[in-house]
Amino acid sequence: MTLRLDQQIAFLNEADRLKSTLRATTLCDGSRPENSAEHSWHLCLYALVLADQAGPQVEIDRVIRMLILHDLVEIDAGDNPIYGDFDQTVVEQQEQLAAERLFGLLPDDLRDELRAIWEEFEAAETPSARFAKSLDRFQPPMQNLASGGGSWIDYKVTPQDIETRIAAKITRGAPGLWTYAKRRITAFFAQGAL
Amino acid sequence: MTLRLDQQIAFLNEADRLKSTLRATTLCDGSRPENSAEHSWHLCLYALVLADQAGPQVEIDRVIRMLILHDLVEIDAGDNPIYGDFDQTVVEQQEQLAAERLFGLLPDDLRDELRAIWEEFEAAETPSARFAKSLDRFQPPMQNLASGGGSWIDYKVTPQDIETRIAAKITRGAPGLWTYAKRRITAFFAQGAL
Repeated sequence: MTLRLDQQIAFLNEADRLKSTLRATTLCDGSRPENSAEHSWHLCLYALVLADQAGPQVEIDRVIRMLILHDLVEIDAGDNPIYGDFDQTVVEQQEQLAAERLFGLLPDDLRDELRAIWEEFEAAETPSARFAKSLDRFQPPMQNLASGGGSWIDYKVTPQDIETRIAAKITRGAPGLWTYAKRRITAFFAQGAL
Repeated sequence: MTLRLDQQIAFLNEADRLKSTLRATTLCDGSRPENSAEHSWHLCLYALVLADQAGPQVEIDRVIRMLILHDLVEIDAGDNPIYGDFDQTVVEQQEQLAAERLFGLLPDDLRDELRAIWEEFEAAETPSARFAKSLDRFQPPMQNLASGGGSWIDYKVTPQDIETRIAAKITRGAPGLWTYAKRRITAFFAQGAL
């Protein structure tokens, strides 16, 4: 039993490094970049608060489990900003290697259970995974609106760029959230805020 | 519907401030204090990974919902370090006021639903709440062991101080975790590491 707990704690200690993985998005007050661990917590809270935006087949507790785990691979692979340029095939290879190493720290039963949840999120085929993916795309524009532009300024994006990158992904799992985000993004840029 | 979403987003933006609430515990690498948002995420991961330490009546998904919400009141009330001195009655009054204000930002149905989850955690009477409380007490010593002492150094604590503050609370919800923690804490201090 001790060996099992040693493995579990080794994984949890390694996971601590996600607190040092920085994202392009800042906190709402613009004071510093958000890290992927606190972002993951925030998305879990989004899932609890915005559950009424999910379709009837979505299991919110499953969504939350996915969101807890969804960015862990960034410990090895880093965060890829929504408006950055990168080779999606290379990113996916890096993330698979990261998943192999990180979940591999766990006892076999837990490794398989948690990796399956992460793979479900990545595949974005189940209603729960699609909703989780929508929240992951919906939170950054809410942060940027709150901070007065955030990563939109850094990447010099237009409302059309934003729509191209996030509209389809948000709409697929939570159409009401894209309607809401689009209205607010349009108003923000119409004010000439950037 | 827009008003409802405006309220939900206002709450989620206010919750963002938990990322700026600092705790006494550091990251595992000792590089900086942990904030309460990333700590909350870490505890959710603890719940997923250490579910086999929970009694049969514990609902892990309920535990996770509690852990997502458990520290939100610190946005107004601040964090109270385990080894600090404070008046528990005053703290509880501050936290109740914080809960009133923060959950009050939400539409009424969500306010009631989320506050009930937080109150269940605070009361520590259900098996799920007791397990959640155990994890909240178990994670800091794991961080301190990883970082070479952490808040134990800052507060000049002895193994007996640690036992006094956390043993009963961890044991109540997860006895196996206290057995494990005690063995490692004893070995750590026996090495004269502090």
